Amino acid sequence: MRVIGIDPGIAIVGFAVLDQRGNQLKPVEYGSIQTEADLATATRLKQIYDACTRLFAEHRPAVVAIEKLFFNRNVTTAFTVGQARGVIMLAAEEARVPITEYTPLQVKMAVVGYGQAEKRQVQEMVKMLLRLPQIPKPDDVADALAIAICEAHSSNVIHKLGKRGTK
Amino acid sequence: MRVIGIDPGIAIVGFAVLDQRGNQLKPVEYGSIQTEADLATATRLKQIYDACTRLFAEHRPAVVAIEKLFFNRNVTTAFTVGQARGVIMLAAEEARVPITEYTPLQVKMAVVGYGQAEKRQVQEMVKMLLRLPQIPKPDDVADALAIAICEAHSSNVIHKLGKRGTK
Repeated sequence: MRVIGIDPGIAIVGFAVLDQRGNQLKPVEYGSIQTEADLATATRLKQIYDACTRLFAEHRPAVVAIEKLFFNRNVTTAFTVGQARGVIMLAAEEARVPITEYTPLQVKMAVVGYGQAEKRQVQEMVKMLLRLPQIPKPDDVADALAIAICEAHSSNVIHKLGKRGTK
Repeated sequence: MRVIGIDPGIAIVGFAVLDQRGNQLKPVEYGSIQTEADLATATRLKQIYDACTRLFAEHRPAVVAIEKLFFNRNVTTAFTVGQARGVIMLAAEEARVPITEYTPLQVKMAVVGYGQAEKRQVQEMVKMLLRLPQIPKPDDVADALAIAICEAHSSNVIHKLGKRGTK
């Protein structure tokens, strides 16, 4: 099964494409979509939407997993990230790919097994689990890989239980 | 000049199409796009995006004016409204229509001439300025009409000053 993890943002969207076979996870592609701060917001949103549309068409994932709101972030950040997240969800919906959502806590639990894990611990586990030569940069890419791992683990468990959760 | 005002949201998007000739404002069409609460967020976002795409294609406005963030709203609301606003801005960008943004304070100043005006006062002024038989419902529609009036007034002033503001 192929999953894509997304860490949404207006300046940087981290993405990670993983293939899962049993307990094996293979990174297929990962990186970031970056938009220039001096462009109009609508232009940046269109760049993100277009890039995600291409990404989903190329990799045809079974699921797109997106990070949920950080409740401890401020209102302006939530609003800005929300705008980017809206066009990413639209691109997934138009590609007819199911969307799952995970909180940072769920991602940490799935990757490190410990909800209070620090960012660095999550990154080290991502590197180890996927046998990467180094921790990917920027942080948004490592975050997207962690979200994809979380999705892969969750669907594995649900698959073993013989059912698939839907939202 | 034709302007469209938008009051974004995930359950209800208010919209208002106004034609401006000199100091005359004529309502062309106004109403709301509503989505069902039991649908997946991505489905609701696509319904909003599709409806806005049709609206912009049909009316070919010179400008789309959208309400800016209420800074006093909570993080979850900001995030949800942000998602809807993202797909509306995308639809405008794809239709190559410039987007302007106004805060609630700016809208009140433009419509009532008083930034602390109450919702009811704004609605009464909207009704009077556009010679409507009654205050449109739901509130989101009246809000969208107020935003469109704000845009029309602003562009009128800027037009008289001989320049057009861009963001």
